[in-house]
Amino acid sequence: MPNLLADLPSAAGGEVFTELLARGGVRIERIVSEGQSTPADQPYDQDHDEWVLLLAGAAGLWLDGEGETTLKPGDHVLIPARRRHRVTWTEAGRPTVWLAVHVA
Amino acid sequence: MPNLLADLPSAAGGEVFTELLARGGVRIERIVSEGQSTPADQPYDQDHDEWVLLLAGAAGLWLDGEGETTLKPGDHVLIPARRRHRVTWTEAGRPTVWLAVHVA
Repeated sequence: MPNLLADLPSAAGGEVFTELLARGGVRIERIVSEGQSTPADQPYDQDHDEWVLLLAGAAGLWLDGEGETTLKPGDHVLIPARRRHRVTWTEAGRPTVWLAVHVA
Repeated sequence: MPNLLADLPSAAGGEVFTELLARGGVRIERIVSEGQSTPADQPYDQDHDEWVLLLAGAAGLWLDGEGETTLKPGDHVLIPARRRHRVTWTEAGRPTVWLAVHVA
């Protein structure tokens, strides 16, 4: 049985993206972070909706027009298409695990 | 910030389904169980794919042709359309939390 929280890859050298499912306009991926953030001058600006759930660790998320919030495990947020956003911080020294559902 | 694991509704009297997102052929829901199972003679038989992730608790899942497995937090499985399946058990006395992504 595959497990999203066991045998995590090290993200110390860069975030690790693992595609879990892609079909019918949906793409589910796991993202493992360890200290990374999005450059302040390079926010994400996507053409599709993305639903995000934090599974482990902690992170800061900035959404254009809404400001910055801290995410803890279980927290979830819908990032609408064209809403600029960025990860302001993730914990260093231990993995932060995200589940992202991209909806075409 | 909404959280999938905080302030859980009691499922002692029946499973609790909460829709989190529905758009573009995708429906994401949280299911809280507490001791429930699917009747052996009434397995689910769905016309769409369902991706399931166990977030908390423990459960048994039977898939036609694959037998029964135990799910722990972080375990995930794709249940293809028309694959008969059932939940054989969930823990009594504490909540089991599922994330289900239904793909049209």
